[in-house]
Amino acid sequence: MYKTIADAALQEAQKAFDAKEIPVGAVVFNTKTYQIIARGHNQTITKCDVSAHAEIRALQKACQKLKTTHLQGYSCYTTLEPCAMCAQALAWAGVDKVLFGAYDPKSGGVEHNARVFNHTHHKPEIIGGLEEKKCQALLTRFFKGLRNG
Amino acid sequence: MYKTIADAALQEAQKAFDAKEIPVGAVVFNTKTYQIIARGHNQTITKCDVSAHAEIRALQKACQKLKTTHLQGYSCYTTLEPCAMCAQALAWAGVDKVLFGAYDPKSGGVEHNARVFNHTHHKPEIIGGLEEKKCQALLTRFFKGLRNG
Repeated sequence: MYKTIADAALQEAQKAFDAKEIPVGAVVFNTKTYQIIARGHNQTITKCDVSAHAEIRALQKACQKLKTTHLQGYSCYTTLEPCAMCAQALAWAGVDKVLFGAYDPKSGGVEHNARVFNHTHHKPEIIGGLEEKKCQALLTRFFKGLRNG
Repeated sequence: MYKTIADAALQEAQKAFDAKEIPVGAVVFNTKTYQIIARGHNQTITKCDVSAHAEIRALQKACQKLKTTHLQGYSCYTTLEPCAMCAQALAWAGVDKVLFGAYDPKSGGVEHNARVFNHTHHKPEIIGGLEEKKCQALLTRFFKGLRNG
């Protein structure tokens, strides 16, 4: 089932890629049924908003849809290890699980650097490296394109 | 000058208080001239958005106003020590200084817990405890009111 979830997040990441944004996508889904309830992609440039990362966008839409800021019973898959901002937002939302594709040693805040969930009251289950190759490939293609102008 | 800045942030915190939100306010100001360019207050319940903390709201408005996500030359004062989410957002924005009033041992992510700026590439100058008593008093009054129902 996680492959379907990851594919949906990768579709979101592709939207970011097409808009010349760092290609990261995220989805919020029902932890038991795997039904996707919200999708988001990185829109920091498009929206001129430093906080408009894929996970934040997906969380915002999930909160709007469910009319609550408490997302117990829901989980989030994102194509790149969340940064500290997104990790803390996921903790505030109280999601069950945080799943991600590619690892981000430079700016990740889950398995690297601030390791936010080591410090939060709510500690979701963490699963990294799900569909890692596909997620990393899109990022590599993006940054290669940037370098080649 | 910081007193004027802090007072403006406290006015924002009071708006949150009046809306029955945890009373935190933040302002973004020009580091040299102290001119305030954006204000925000905690609106997580009002906006049904886990990310709508005072600092995120102020950053969003500052980015919109200046039409950039790079806030070099600007600083942020907030009435409560930023959480990891807001600290990382301030790092992404590249603000010069992060100033705050009350310390937050439970959920703060600057001087406590994740200590986000120990791990970020951009490290703003940090000054905590500015107008601490006033900022703490408003928070204490809010939580006392909650307990007394």
